[in-house]
Amino acid sequence: MIKVNRFIKKREKKIGLPPGTPVYTGEKKKGGVEISVIDYDKQQFRKKEYEKIEDCFAYKETSTVSWINIDGVHKAEIIEKLGQFFKLHPLVVEDIMSPGHRPKMEEFEDYIFIVLKMLSYDKKEKRVKEEQVSLILGLNYVISFQERQGDVFNPIRERVKKGRGRIRTMGPDYLTHSLLDAVVDNYFLILEEIGEGIEELEEKLIDNSRPDTLQNIHSLKREMIFLRRSVWPLREVISGLQKSASDLIRRDTIRFLQDIYDHTIQVMDTIEIFRDMLFSMHDTYLSNISNRMNEVMKVLTMIATIFIPLTFLAGVYGMNFKFMPELSWRGGYFIILGIMAAIVIFMVIYFKKKKWL
Amino acid sequence: MIKVNRFIKKREKKIGLPPGTPVYTGEKKKGGVEISVIDYDKQQFRKKEYEKIEDCFAYKETSTVSWINIDGVHKAEIIEKLGQFFKLHPLVVEDIMSPGHRPKMEEFEDYIFIVLKMLSYDKKEKRVKEEQVSLILGLNYVISFQERQGDVFNPIRERVKKGRGRIRTMGPDYLTHSLLDAVVDNYFLILEEIGEGIEELEEKLIDNSRPDTLQNIHSLKREMIFLRRSVWPLREVISGLQKSASDLIRRDTIRFLQDIYDHTIQVMDTIEIFRDMLFSMHDTYLSNISNRMNEVMKVLTMIATIFIPLTFLAGVYGMNFKFMPELSWRGGYFIILGIMAAIVIFMVIYFKKKKWL
Amino acid sequence: MIKVNRFIKKREKKIGLPPGTPVYTGEKKKGGVEISVIDYDKQQFRKKEYEKIEDCFAYKETSTVSWINIDGVHKAEIIEKLGQFFKLHPLVVEDIMSPGHRPKMEEFEDYIFIVLKMLSYDKKEKRVKEEQVSLILGLNYVISFQERQGDVFNPIRERVKKGRGRIRTMGPDYLTHSLLDAVVDNYFLILEEIGEGIEELEEKLIDNSRPDTLQNIHSLKREMIFLRRSVWPLREVISGLQKSASDLIRRDTIRFLQDIYDHTIQVMDTIEIFRDMLFSMHDTYLSNISNRMNEVMKVLTMIATIFIPLTFLAGVYGMNFKFMPELSWRGGYFIILGIMAAIVIFMVIYFKKKKWL
Amino acid sequence: MIKVNRFIKKREKKIGLPPGTPVYTGEKKKGGVEISVIDYDKQQFRKKEYEKIEDCFAYKETSTVSWINIDGVHKAEIIEKLGQFFKLHPLVVEDIMSPGHRPKMEEFEDYIFIVLKMLSYDKKEKRVKEEQVSLILGLNYVISFQERQGDVFNPIRERVKKGRGRIRTMGPDYLTHSLLDAVVDNYFLILEEIGEGIEELEEKLIDNSRPDTLQNIHSLKREMIFLRRSVWPLREVISGLQKSASDLIRRDTIRFLQDIYDHTIQVMDTIEIFRDMLFSMHDTYLSNISNRMNEVMKVLTMIATIFIPLTFLAGVYGMNFKFMPELSWRGGYFIILGIMAAIVIFMVIYFKKKKWL
Amino acid sequence: MIKVNRFIKKREKKIGLPPGTPVYTGEKKKGGVEISVIDYDKQQFRKKEYEKIEDCFAYKETSTVSWINIDGVHKAEIIEKLGQFFKLHPLVVEDIMSPGHRPKMEEFEDYIFIVLKMLSYDKKEKRVKEEQVSLILGLNYVISFQERQGDVFNPIRERVKKGRGRIRTMGPDYLTHSLLDAVVDNYFLILEEIGEGIEELEEKLIDNSRPDTLQNIHSLKREMIFLRRSVWPLREVISGLQKSASDLIRRDTIRFLQDIYDHTIQVMDTIEIFRDMLFSMHDTYLSNISNRMNEVMKVLTMIATIFIPLTFLAGVYGMNFKFMPELSWRGGYFIILGIMAAIVIFMVIYFKKKKWL
Repeated sequence: MIKVNRFIKKREKKIGLPPGTPVYTGEKKKGGVEISVIDYDKQQFRKKEYEKIEDCFAYKETSTVSWINIDGVHKAEIIEKLGQFFKLHPLVVEDIMSPGHRPKMEEFEDYIFIVLKMLSYDKKEKRVKEEQVSLILGLNYVISFQERQGDVFNPIRERVKKGRGRIRTMGPDYLTHSLLDAVVDNYFLILEEIGEGIEELEEKLIDNSRPDTLQNIHSLKREMIFLRRSVWPLREVISGLQKSASDLIRRDTIRFLQDIYDHTIQVMDTIEIFRDMLFSMHDTYLSNISNRMNEVMKVLTMIATIFIPLTFLAGVYGMNFKFMPELSWRGGYFIILGIMAAIVIFMVIYFKKKKWL
Repeated sequence: MIKVNRFIKKREKKIGLPPGTPVYTGEKKKGGVEISVIDYDKQQFRKKEYEKIEDCFAYKETSTVSWINIDGVHKAEIIEKLGQFFKLHPLVVEDIMSPGHRPKMEEFEDYIFIVLKMLSYDKKEKRVKEEQVSLILGLNYVISFQERQGDVFNPIRERVKKGRGRIRTMGPDYLTHSLLDAVVDNYFLILEEIGEGIEELEEKLIDNSRPDTLQNIHSLKREMIFLRRSVWPLREVISGLQKSASDLIRRDTIRFLQDIYDHTIQVMDTIEIFRDMLFSMHDTYLSNISNRMNEVMKVLTMIATIFIPLTFLAGVYGMNFKFMPELSWRGGYFIILGIMAAIVIFMVIYFKKKKWL
Repeated sequence: MIKVNRFIKKREKKIGLPPGTPVYTGEKKKGGVEISVIDYDKQQFRKKEYEKIEDCFAYKETSTVSWINIDGVHKAEIIEKLGQFFKLHPLVVEDIMSPGHRPKMEEFEDYIFIVLKMLSYDKKEKRVKEEQVSLILGLNYVISFQERQGDVFNPIRERVKKGRGRIRTMGPDYLTHSLLDAVVDNYFLILEEIGEGIEELEEKLIDNSRPDTLQNIHSLKREMIFLRRSVWPLREVISGLQKSASDLIRRDTIRFLQDIYDHTIQVMDTIEIFRDMLFSMHDTYLSNISNRMNEVMKVLTMIATIFIPLTFLAGVYGMNFKFMPELSWRGGYFIILGIMAAIVIFMVIYFKKKKWL
Repeated sequence: MIKVNRFIKKREKKIGLPPGTPVYTGEKKKGGVEISVIDYDKQQFRKKEYEKIEDCFAYKETSTVSWINIDGVHKAEIIEKLGQFFKLHPLVVEDIMSPGHRPKMEEFEDYIFIVLKMLSYDKKEKRVKEEQVSLILGLNYVISFQERQGDVFNPIRERVKKGRGRIRTMGPDYLTHSLLDAVVDNYFLILEEIGEGIEELEEKLIDNSRPDTLQNIHSLKREMIFLRRSVWPLREVISGLQKSASDLIRRDTIRFLQDIYDHTIQVMDTIEIFRDMLFSMHDTYLSNISNRMNEVMKVLTMIATIFIPLTFLAGVYGMNFKFMPELSWRGGYFIILGIMAAIVIFMVIYFKKKKWL
Repeated sequence: MIKVNRFIKKREKKIGLPPGTPVYTGEKKKGGVEISVIDYDKQQFRKKEYEKIEDCFAYKETSTVSWINIDGVHKAEIIEKLGQFFKLHPLVVEDIMSPGHRPKMEEFEDYIFIVLKMLSYDKKEKRVKEEQVSLILGLNYVISFQERQGDVFNPIRERVKKGRGRIRTMGPDYLTHSLLDAVVDNYFLILEEIGEGIEELEEKLIDNSRPDTLQNIHSLKREMIFLRRSVWPLREVISGLQKSASDLIRRDTIRFLQDIYDHTIQVMDTIEIFRDMLFSMHDTYLSNISNRMNEVMKVLTMIATIFIPLTFLAGVYGMNFKFMPELSWRGGYFIILGIMAAIVIFMVIYFKKKKWL
């Protein structure tokens, strides 16, 4: 069954409220909000977890790069406090709490706001699930918001901790790039999983085209639409960052953003190719049904074409006319059996010639 | 049945008239025109209803923000008088009274004219209905025109009255934004209702593909076309407002307009996704019909393939030849019954192997 | 039958001739060319008919607005003389006489040349017919060329005569606008007539899908293509006029041109919607055929499935074996009839369950 | 059968060779290369044929307009010599000899190079054939290259000779325009011929949809693709010439180029319309097949539905039960015949009601 | 079976690693990396093979043109060393080792980086195979990287050695052009091979439409998608090189790049035409199936329609009514046989008229 509400997030709670009102519009959620801070520069590295949002306000002014990560956006008061301290636009605060947004990038005077989609693939339900990630890139801090705790950002935490690559020597714009990169890299994993699903489906299709095969094809097509909707606007986000006139994005980082841009194009290409594959699987399915119908019809026609004339012949000699000379011939019965056999042989040859057998 | 006139408003009344002639071209309507004014600034709030249009002319010059709302555009003399006093271009007056217009935005020297579509979904008829809303944004006033009284703007009235949000502290451009926002927010509600319709239809489709299912799919597709036609040009309207060089739109408000722009894109995305869903439902419908035909053919073929040879056999031994040795065998009849049973068993096994059973 | 030559005007007469040669390329035509002049300004109005083209050359230099209307472009010498006097480019003279042109707008130093299509709908043949209208907008004159006499411009003549609207107070650019407006307004009438044709066809489609319904759908689709070809380039014509740097178009008139532009977009929108409707009618038609086939197959299958086994049973007891115990049972016949009835009842229940009945 | 090599010219001969190597890549050809020169200005006209290419080098420096026409591009040494003398870029020389090029326009310092396609329609094979025409427009000369001798340029030769039109008074750019015009005018002739083919095919389609009708539709579609490929890039060629900053194209001629541009658009429009027609003919073909299947099924179903029950009835009274009271009734036989007639009448009425008859 | 991983290169190895990490992501490979250098100018030519990458570092500073070719990119340390010495951006080093990249062009301060696809056609598997080629164009050197040793660049080696064409007199930009040209020329060969495959398939299609024909059509379509994905971005690469502001591309070479650009467009055109052909082959296939079904149905219907009434007639006279006057007529049997023959004749005439025979 189609879950239409995957595509339109319930907005009822918000209708009638003035814009910029911070109201969480995602699925209901319990549990707390986890706040962690990673603070680093070339020399030092600190990682802390906080309970109160106020505790991490100090990081705004430090000269080190501070990455404030917030898992859970369902508590309006936390996001609101943060928004007030970091002087975020009310609409930004609202967007952070509304998981139904398209990926987008907005430049403000002293920060850049990015919305993107973290995807995961639920193998059981064969569905792509999405989670909204919001990023605030400031002068020397990055704030990231996730709907729930995930492990996609862990390798970056590791990299910062161990000082692998150039991440420790570069600014918060490079950190933002790394977070974007982690999200886009994850798309490739999902495409691989879906790709395996397509391969499996195709094997099934060859063996046996049952109605549920069609359902599967359609639901995979739908996942492609879903994916495309999440990935397509990302292109604009990244090219927006590249073309940004803001000082927050250093020249060095733009080259790295190009790398993510290329990956996004590759993801889009693959999605289009998968869609094409699913279309031709759909064609194959329909043609299979058609072929099978043809098979059925041929069997029926052969049986009918062979036996109907024979039955007629038998019917003729089953008539009760008083005067039917053949009936009293001694070999009449066997002659008729012979004629019948001849008809069968002729028919079989005819069908062979027509390539029905 | 298609109501073609949903798409082309009867224009006969107007043909041959010079442009700028104020003639109401919508459906016939009785009853009066309701005029109400809300006048506010940071400190004060006044709401009044007037009978004569002349009574609200005074608000043009006040320094407070004045929102003049007019429900009903079918009385030419009212709109004309207003147009003359507020120095509206004759074509603007004409457009206000012609409900068949596409959404558009036009800048004039001292006001901006906006046409947009208010939509509602008639659940019984399963049809989207549209109503034209025209807005005039002046230096310190907003004039809104609706075809009939609606409740979409009520939350804004409430917000102004109670001073919720920033509406009371901002100018008429923010009020215009709020009205646009209310209209676009309403589109989400309609999409949800249509989304439910699609879900229902899909459930029906799985149970039972009757010809009227196809009709429903097509009529939903048509509603999508209808919706798209109303929403698509709205994008340009809003981006036109954003890029407007006019002083009437303050810089603060542009950021808020971006929010509406995002929502419009989301609405368009959802419409496209619904269309895709309806296309695949159409495919499923056709494939269901095909499958059912296959089922029917298989039943026919099995029955015919089993019984036609048996009938032939019975026919053979119903022949009246004088000399047919089998007929006089004692067990002949039972042997034949046995042979018949063997044929049936063989056929059933054959069909099992062919996966028809 | 397709009349391909609707789409490609015979050009044979022209092939090999140098460009700018004035040769009439439309259908053969008899009769004369009618020349009429309307000359007006705020104070005065004169209308005259002339026999010779030279008689209206005087109007070129008057300070009043002069509208020279020429019905019939099949006499090369008339158009040529006019062209020489008004210093028209040879290609303009050629284009006026070639009815196969796309709508276009070309600016020259002291005049603007406009080609557009006047459409009419032949209800009997269910065909859109087109006629080329050419306009020359000069400093204080407008020359209009029609293939034959029409009544689309009559309301404008009336308006000028009676001084209704602002037409008498404005220049030849506004007159040109009025002529364009009259042509575009006429498209709405044609769309309404076609719209009615679509409604009728849809009703027929529901009652009875005969092969000629498909023909009708296709021919309506073709009319849509025909219409689109005439209307689509009009958009560019009008936006070309709006963006024209020429002094011939005054600033006041540009606002009015926007109105025509909006109407053109509306016409295009409606054409697209009609095409969509015709596509879904095509789908419905195909699905109707499919459904009817299904119905036929079900009837056949039911009859065959019920009677074939019964006939077999009757055949068995029609065999002439000497020893068939049932035959000599007293109630044998009635038992068999009972069994047959039981089979029928079982089958009917089975079909009910399968929802075939 | 598809001739794929219509679309990809064999390039094997060239692979591995450095670019700019003059090698003829078209079909093998015998016979010589014909060189003719037409030299003219307002006062004089000379036409000569030469055997050696060197003989026409003198025309490069004359102040008159010289049109050097070369029929046959398969002799590398001729083209090469010419190229060296006229200082053509090696790639230009190479392109002249490679008939597989797309239409294109390239500006060089002292000449403009144009490639275009001359088309002809082979009525027997129902195929469009193409021939490459290359033009070099220099300061006071035009060089044209054709693959073989054709008669498309003859009218222009006549025009120059007799001094018809403005050709003698204008420069080599106008001559180039005339050559382009002759080529494009020729496209209309081909479209007319194809148009007639489409009309014929449609008539056939109505009478009788045989499998080869589909083949014809597909091959016409393919010709359309072929045509489009030749015509589409021509638009850019001509608009490139119009926008060219080169002094070789005088302002006067640009207006004439616009005329060719309009014709090219018309050709493209007609191609699109033909494609649309062929698509709907394809639909009609499929629907015809479907309808015929329906007809066949109805006949089968009617026959079966009428006679199967009757045969069963006859079978019942053909049973050999000892005790079957009806058999000994005097009028039994006639009663049964009556019942059978009643069944037939009932069935016929039923089919009438179902509109199968 | 679809090999989905042709479209998405396994990226698992890289996920979580910082960007710019040189890791080989292609298929596993053994064997060494072959390094060869061709060093030339107008006067001299040297060709050497090296074992260690460090040996060819000296060529960076020579004034001659040095072409360093590296076959095999699976050894990270080699590419990395080279990258450090030639000061390549870490992302460039990474891209060279990741064979899944789209064709692209990136300008750096002192070199240009180009990625493109070398294609080959595996006739047995009927599959296009791709190999990544990376090029570094520096001030007086070109470095080329291939996944494995190929012979596509051999003609260029020959040309440089023998000093054919202008290659020895021009710079490294012309060498780059020659390498690009060799790659694009090779695409034509592949298209020819695929074209032959399409021709073969079409012949098969006419003889005999078996289900595997459809499979072949679909797999060829997929190869087209694959090809397009490799070729499409090449257009941008080449136009990027043409528009490049970098001094590394001299003005002379730009003209030659236009030649490659034209070829790329031709390749794209041919791909589109092949896709169109495959679509119409798909249509033909479906229509063939449909036609064959029609044939089968006609045979069945003819047999059934002729023999069912005859069988009924025989059944009537097989009834055992005591009083059936016809049975005792002397010529009854022959009269009935005559009636039966008449029915057959009538039916055959009817079918002839309906054009079923």
